[in-house]
Amino acid sequence: MRTLELVDELAAIVGRAHVLTDPDVVAGHVVDWTGHWVGSTCAVVRPADTAETSAVLAACHRAGVAVVPQGGNTGLVGGSVPMRGELVLSTARLDEIERVDPIGRTIAAGAGVTVARAQQAARAHDLDLGVDLASRDSATLGGIVATNAGGIRMIKNGNTRHQVLGLEAVLADGRTVSRWKELTKDNVGYDLPGLLAGSEGTLAVITRVLMRLVVPPRETHVALIGVGTVGVALRLIAEIQRAGITVEAAELMTRAGIHLVRTHCALRPPLAADPAYYLLVEVSGRPETQAALFDVLEDAGPNVLDAAVEQGPAHRLWRYREGHTEAVSAESSTPPVKLDLSTPVREIEPFLSALGEDLAESAPAVRAICFGHLGDGNIHVNLLDVAADDRDAVTDTVLRRVALHDGSISAEHGIGRAKARWIGLGRSDVDLDIMRSIRAALDPARLLNPHILPAK
Amino acid sequence: MRTLELVDELAAIVGRAHVLTDPDVVAGHVVDWTGHWVGSTCAVVRPADTAETSAVLAACHRAGVAVVPQGGNTGLVGGSVPMRGELVLSTARLDEIERVDPIGRTIAAGAGVTVARAQQAARAHDLDLGVDLASRDSATLGGIVATNAGGIRMIKNGNTRHQVLGLEAVLADGRTVSRWKELTKDNVGYDLPGLLAGSEGTLAVITRVLMRLVVPPRETHVALIGVGTVGVALRLIAEIQRAGITVEAAELMTRAGIHLVRTHCALRPPLAADPAYYLLVEVSGRPETQAALFDVLEDAGPNVLDAAVEQGPAHRLWRYREGHTEAVSAESSTPPVKLDLSTPVREIEPFLSALGEDLAESAPAVRAICFGHLGDGNIHVNLLDVAADDRDAVTDTVLRRVALHDGSISAEHGIGRAKARWIGLGRSDVDLDIMRSIRAALDPARLLNPHILPAK
Repeated sequence: MRTLELVDELAAIVGRAHVLTDPDVVAGHVVDWTGHWVGSTCAVVRPADTAETSAVLAACHRAGVAVVPQGGNTGLVGGSVPMRGELVLSTARLDEIERVDPIGRTIAAGAGVTVARAQQAARAHDLDLGVDLASRDSATLGGIVATNAGGIRMIKNGNTRHQVLGLEAVLADGRTVSRWKELTKDNVGYDLPGLLAGSEGTLAVITRVLMRLVVPPRETHVALIGVGTVGVALRLIAEIQRAGITVEAAELMTRAGIHLVRTHCALRPPLAADPAYYLLVEVSGRPETQAALFDVLEDAGPNVLDAAVEQGPAHRLWRYREGHTEAVSAESSTPPVKLDLSTPVREIEPFLSALGEDLAESAPAVRAICFGHLGDGNIHVNLLDVAADDRDAVTDTVLRRVALHDGSISAEHGIGRAKARWIGLGRSDVDLDIMRSIRAALDPARLLNPHILPAK
Repeated sequence: MRTLELVDELAAIVGRAHVLTDPDVVAGHVVDWTGHWVGSTCAVVRPADTAETSAVLAACHRAGVAVVPQGGNTGLVGGSVPMRGELVLSTARLDEIERVDPIGRTIAAGAGVTVARAQQAARAHDLDLGVDLASRDSATLGGIVATNAGGIRMIKNGNTRHQVLGLEAVLADGRTVSRWKELTKDNVGYDLPGLLAGSEGTLAVITRVLMRLVVPPRETHVALIGVGTVGVALRLIAEIQRAGITVEAAELMTRAGIHLVRTHCALRPPLAADPAYYLLVEVSGRPETQAALFDVLEDAGPNVLDAAVEQGPAHRLWRYREGHTEAVSAESSTPPVKLDLSTPVREIEPFLSALGEDLAESAPAVRAICFGHLGDGNIHVNLLDVAADDRDAVTDTVLRRVALHDGSISAEHGIGRAKARWIGLGRSDVDLDIMRSIRAALDPARLLNPHILPAK
């Protein structure tokens, strides 16, 4: 048996204990956390370092066995699940925090280190990772780089790709490549780390990452602001920034979303008014910032229907935003359809309005709860009460609608398997050809994550 | 004659007036502005739009004629000069500012639009381009993207690559690819705009760019601070940022540099002390910022040897920094050797010190004036009084030294022709192989800027 021989070969590289084949043991590696994507694997292999990763990939390459790299397996698009027996290369043991440099403000760590552990290590030096997201306890640094994760801190720090200074990675044939310099400026050839970021494991397996750290804000203030239109919310953000105030987060919610969260979490109405849109803004800066924020809100006059402001690290107002995910899951009669999209900011309101009409016509029983990162035009569309047979049809409706508004069918989650059939809504044929040719240059046999970015 | 036939074909595409072959007319296109790189061209072609660019490249592809894309031709590494008769594709007529969107904060423009014109267009909407550099009146948007230009605003805004939201570009075979969405988050496949940024015209010809705009600071303050070590300067920057003050620029200069500028520009000593290092910091924020800045400087105690602070748009203190380029050129008995490097910030001082020793030993007659962007670890090494025959040898000394300090042989200028022979100091063999294979995937005949990133 070729697979058995390969398993023996891999055991010789990483140790028998780190080649998992028992169906019970590998079960957690062949399903994503939503339970929607379920596959199978010939083995889960856990190399201890880059050298072992290289040997594992070289062995798979010789055997012609496809490999799915897997970090925390927290993705939402089925990108880290082996679908047809591919070998899973788990980064779980690449878990060393090698160094936090407080002067250069960098962290060097194995790809399997979780976001939460990296944050903790940075915070011990009064610094922080520039990326934060809800799955921080499981999501890994290698995973957030490979998927170019977003999150709520992106309005200030940019996405994960912008935080990456260096990478070590192994190609499909086992060759190791390293860009490992604590430099923000290094114009020597193509931006390989930037190319690997967001490539969803199709070009190389990331084994080590070198990321920039940010100076955390000394004090922050949160305002929950009621507005009648998205346009008013956008102008407010601009006014706040123009007043010299740093915006740490800007989250948009709707009346329907706030109602759902209040019902589920038994929260009081946050504002006396019940506006169409709720804007949650977190700002930072000097101690005078809160007064400056009040000035901006006052200058906005009747456009601000109502506002609540609070100071301090444990912001009560954030609960109205953070409650959305849980409320959506709990209050839907079926597993919610969760789509992560973006549009140009000026298209947010037209998109939401047109989407409402689309759904009223084609799926009147479905409830849509939309919220997102306003500054990035990033909207999380959550569809409740969708019958199992209708999931693809409503997804199709939403993705076609977002394409009509010059938006992206995937803002921060990637394409994975979930959106593979809609990739043509996001990229032209020439663009897809270019991507395939780059992939073919690095992995001609298509052994790395073969189900992502399908061949023509 | 094949070339004559091609010229006729190109004239039919762009109009006879836009295919330049007269030696006097093309003279400015075959030499860089330092006069160091001089080549020759079969013709300079100026397409009016993407469609004409596509037709021109397709014709060159069929004829097997190599093409050098050229914007403002302000590069410092010979990257935009045709060396052996290649056709020059000038972006001069791709000069339309299509749109400034004050809500989405974006600018859409032809690749041939100069940085200064784009800045002007943005400022009409009380916004600004995130990139600024001394060659702004000639450098083009296509050029700064293709070279991933840096500049003094990078500490706040990131480099040019980070400002790019979308691109339209033409491949070597004439195919057009477009990523053109006003989105900061769009995780659909590989980051093609990021890959083209910094590729120095080797992967495609950029014809249109879509860039983000930034909110300019409402008021800024400048401090010139005397310190005894680079470490103190770095800690000061960190303290200023931790105090919630936004740093717009942080420039490091040396005693030798300040002396040279004072001599050449007839300026008074900026500080009573004459410290080893001068740190120029520009900060922005709320009106209280100046007081906050004073607090930080006072808290630093005796580490700050002296400081001058001023407010307002026309900062007198900047003259000490800006005078460097002119002073270096004027005060050197030979054309200065200008090298653009970066090191990890903690290596700046060890590097400068070791470089001084290297040069004292190998080239004692050479004066080195170093200055740069402190936050980025970006150092401009200027070598004065270098004999023509010694240029390569001193360049070799500096580049080998920076490699020993884990630095980059090119921080913001690119590799071009000037540093091609030293590329191995910056990238491993596997890395170079990967870059070559990506290039081969997009331009198998190596027709685009063939002298950049040489074949193995």
